[in-house]
Amino acid sequence: MFGTLFQSSAVVSTALSVATLAMFATAALAMLGLTWTSERWRVPLALSAVALLVSGLEYYAASNIWLAGQQLSAASRYVAWFVVQPMQVASVFFFTCIAGKVPVGVFWRTLAAAILMVLARYLGDARLFNPTLGVLLSIAFWLYILGELYFGAMADAVGKSTRPIRLGYFWIRLIMTIGWAIYPILHFVDVVIGTGHVAPIIVLYTVADLINLIAVSMIVLAVAGEERF
Amino acid sequence: MFGTLFQSSAVVSTALSVATLAMFATAALAMLGLTWTSERWRVPLALSAVALLVSGLEYYAASNIWLAGQQLSAASRYVAWFVVQPMQVASVFFFTCIAGKVPVGVFWRTLAAAILMVLARYLGDARLFNPTLGVLLSIAFWLYILGELYFGAMADAVGKSTRPIRLGYFWIRLIMTIGWAIYPILHFVDVVIGTGHVAPIIVLYTVADLINLIAVSMIVLAVAGEERF
Amino acid sequence: MFGTLFQSSAVVSTALSVATLAMFATAALAMLGLTWTSERWRVPLALSAVALLVSGLEYYAASNIWLAGQQLSAASRYVAWFVVQPMQVASVFFFTCIAGKVPVGVFWRTLAAAILMVLARYLGDARLFNPTLGVLLSIAFWLYILGELYFGAMADAVGKSTRPIRLGYFWIRLIMTIGWAIYPILHFVDVVIGTGHVAPIIVLYTVADLINLIAVSMIVLAVAGEERF
Amino acid sequence: MFGTLFQSSAVVSTALSVATLAMFATAALAMLGLTWTSERWRVPLALSAVALLVSGLEYYAASNIWLAGQQLSAASRYVAWFVVQPMQVASVFFFTCIAGKVPVGVFWRTLAAAILMVLARYLGDARLFNPTLGVLLSIAFWLYILGELYFGAMADAVGKSTRPIRLGYFWIRLIMTIGWAIYPILHFVDVVIGTGHVAPIIVLYTVADLINLIAVSMIVLAVAGEERF
Amino acid sequence: MFGTLFQSSAVVSTALSVATLAMFATAALAMLGLTWTSERWRVPLALSAVALLVSGLEYYAASNIWLAGQQLSAASRYVAWFVVQPMQVASVFFFTCIAGKVPVGVFWRTLAAAILMVLARYLGDARLFNPTLGVLLSIAFWLYILGELYFGAMADAVGKSTRPIRLGYFWIRLIMTIGWAIYPILHFVDVVIGTGHVAPIIVLYTVADLINLIAVSMIVLAVAGEERF
Repeated sequence: MFGTLFQSSAVVSTALSVATLAMFATAALAMLGLTWTSERWRVPLALSAVALLVSGLEYYAASNIWLAGQQLSAASRYVAWFVVQPMQVASVFFFTCIAGKVPVGVFWRTLAAAILMVLARYLGDARLFNPTLGVLLSIAFWLYILGELYFGAMADAVGKSTRPIRLGYFWIRLIMTIGWAIYPILHFVDVVIGTGHVAPIIVLYTVADLINLIAVSMIVLAVAGEERF
Repeated sequence: MFGTLFQSSAVVSTALSVATLAMFATAALAMLGLTWTSERWRVPLALSAVALLVSGLEYYAASNIWLAGQQLSAASRYVAWFVVQPMQVASVFFFTCIAGKVPVGVFWRTLAAAILMVLARYLGDARLFNPTLGVLLSIAFWLYILGELYFGAMADAVGKSTRPIRLGYFWIRLIMTIGWAIYPILHFVDVVIGTGHVAPIIVLYTVADLINLIAVSMIVLAVAGEERF
Repeated sequence: MFGTLFQSSAVVSTALSVATLAMFATAALAMLGLTWTSERWRVPLALSAVALLVSGLEYYAASNIWLAGQQLSAASRYVAWFVVQPMQVASVFFFTCIAGKVPVGVFWRTLAAAILMVLARYLGDARLFNPTLGVLLSIAFWLYILGELYFGAMADAVGKSTRPIRLGYFWIRLIMTIGWAIYPILHFVDVVIGTGHVAPIIVLYTVADLINLIAVSMIVLAVAGEERF
Repeated sequence: MFGTLFQSSAVVSTALSVATLAMFATAALAMLGLTWTSERWRVPLALSAVALLVSGLEYYAASNIWLAGQQLSAASRYVAWFVVQPMQVASVFFFTCIAGKVPVGVFWRTLAAAILMVLARYLGDARLFNPTLGVLLSIAFWLYILGELYFGAMADAVGKSTRPIRLGYFWIRLIMTIGWAIYPILHFVDVVIGTGHVAPIIVLYTVADLINLIAVSMIVLAVAGEERF
Repeated sequence: MFGTLFQSSAVVSTALSVATLAMFATAALAMLGLTWTSERWRVPLALSAVALLVSGLEYYAASNIWLAGQQLSAASRYVAWFVVQPMQVASVFFFTCIAGKVPVGVFWRTLAAAILMVLARYLGDARLFNPTLGVLLSIAFWLYILGELYFGAMADAVGKSTRPIRLGYFWIRLIMTIGWAIYPILHFVDVVIGTGHVAPIIVLYTVADLINLIAVSMIVLAVAGEERF
């Protein structure tokens, strides 16, 4: 991004650069948000801020790679997802902990599921494992996380809580249901069908990441801010 | 900017470098300002600080591109505007929220209008859309934002507030009326008439960005500081 | 990592890049954690945060070296261990100081043992010393630290403390027993047997560092947070 | 500076590198100072800290340019002065606001004079304007600022204040009288006489900047600290 | 350091890299320390933290220079010493100010002596002055500082203070007596005898800097922390 000329018609370069700036901007916002939200909101907010920061670093790397050679592999995405998606799942767990008592076992189970979900897709992409099986396993771990979100102790704790927390949880869960669905779908097209990491897939992944990461963070920030304004 | 020699007579290099330093300087000032202003001012102040930071990163990139090859496209500007202009509109919304109750629908409508305003101009610049139609649509979304600022719930909330808030709002609205007018005008000359992204356009865009971004931020900081000194 | 294309099948590149991002992410988290934990926890927390930051810088350097030439020496690891492992031992000392009174001599003895433990391995790796003797001396210093952890004044102080502190100490000690065992083993294979710093050794070292550093930090953060939630 | 070998006998390289480090060091000190000074001192302190930071960035760029090609133009200095000198004048204004009531018109007049003072010299250096006339205009604007400092509302407000504030103001005003005199003198030698931006001029400018910027900042920090110790 | 492969047997590269990381790590620790120490300790602590930061930047530059060409001059050291050693002397002055009343004249005299001490050695190294006379003058200024430390107002103020402050002062003074003795000795070997800036001198300087800077900072941090734990 820095120091390389491109035209507006270069949609991939534009998308990767906008994602870089938007991730860093919202990461900065969420970190500044730690100074005005009440203390009990700081764990989920810090987790989602750091997830945005890591994702911004990855998009910075990705846009540099793309601008240098007009190609990109999925590897830099997996590097970030290994860190970002477990952090997002942990952020949701600590979000529900503010609503009510949630057993700590839920934390370990959903964290492990998030790591395994990324690992299964990664092993498929790296051809160290059957890609089709990888994507299926990845969907299974994702559905397990959704199960915890819809029917587990986290949903119970939130259900007895205040309206802003219930509303925030509803939207975060919706994003993790609809927005996260794009990852196995694009992975299936890219790796199993075998189109490769072509421009439309890069743009779609980028738009999905932008919405999934920024929306979840801003919801946490908004719910945390609701208590004060 | 860093490590490349240029003479004072290179006006474009000087303008881009001054913009870079001025954006970073005022971003740092607005962030330090978060430590001395009262808590309720932190959301609009943080938003405008982050907008300045993002704009500083863009000008840093732009000055590097210019110094490397003495040319620049509008693409890096659109990359920043996609992040900066929605953040500025959000900053004004949260500014008015301090003055009084503003329905949350206004936030979503003006945010969407700001994103669509940039998108319409971007699609024209990328030739993915008719440039003339793009600039007209962009003006329509801008006028919608101005309508909300002059006749909507934000104006009502501010009208019943203290003098510093009313005064600050008056100036911010004026900048978004007069200062933002330069964007469709320069876009029209650059893309529709087709002069391309030549030196005078770069300098004019830079001066406009400098005033629009820094003035709005410093007004928010000054109004926030008024409560304490 | 930044600006270099690699495929998911490049396991070493992926491992080093994930380690870089994960170290920086948890360092940021531990530093943000200083804003919500009580003051008396700040010394061990700051020490483990800085250890993560230094380790992140080392992995950033290592991934750049690997991506540039597909080879790596153990030197950059020793550079980091000279700083990181004494800081971790100091972090555990200050952790136990919160539990109860620990004589300051323990601090100096364990700190010296940690420095000598790394130095012995380093001198072996640099062939300035007999590698076999180096690894044996290194194990002796490590066992001395373990002795202090299991039977010294630190164990006594923790034993009379609250449950979260006892539990945290148990896990940290376990990691320093099992997790740290991998360092002399891999060193033995790399230097004494003489396989050199090959890919499997790099990946194993990276996984060990990831778990040893991040787990210890997150345990300190969790125990510190326990007091408040 | 970074990664380029030079000998101690390279006086220009040494001067530019020392200026870079000294500016960053005192900027860091002034920013850390915000955590221990009382709230009302934060505006002038933040302004002078940011001025140092911007100046440090400029000297970092200048030392890189010099080390790369052993030549330097005045352009990078003007880039920094456009931001730094208005910030310093604003810092003095807010300093006097702590002492007593100063009409806000003084702020706008001195800020405009500071910008025009730099602009007049810049236009002369860029040959967009008669250099002799430029330097004379620049001196006129400087004398106007001095007039405000010696006989205007700021001097009145400070005169009725405490001893540390009076003393601090005396020294800041003296620096802006004697220290700032070097800028038109060196500009006259460099541009009007036409020696060009040769080594002795670079070193003299650097020494002047070092004293003018660091001394003013440290005086503000010292006066602000006086209230507490 | 970053992106360049070296082996453990490259002792100079290792020493410079360890110094870089250790300086940054302890600078970060001292800055984080500002959040848990009482306010009156912040001036000496901030000064020693910034001295470490500046020294870290210098070692980062030095390790890059060495890795690029396997040679190094003393110039980058003098660049740092011009900033670091006056800051350390100022840090000791403000340390003693916490113990008791010290006349401000001591500050100006020791600060000037520290700057002249570095300047005398620098002028000798740059051959702008007789090296032997330079080293003798430098020793004279150093002895003057030691005189103030042992028999001046600072020793008096500390003598009537608490035990931790007396102990901390004793150790800092000892380091400035024994540890600082290495600078004129190595300068004598390097410049007057004329061995040049060879590997053993680089390593010895690095070890001296490591101990002198880090130990002094950590003593200030420890004494400051003593008041709370």
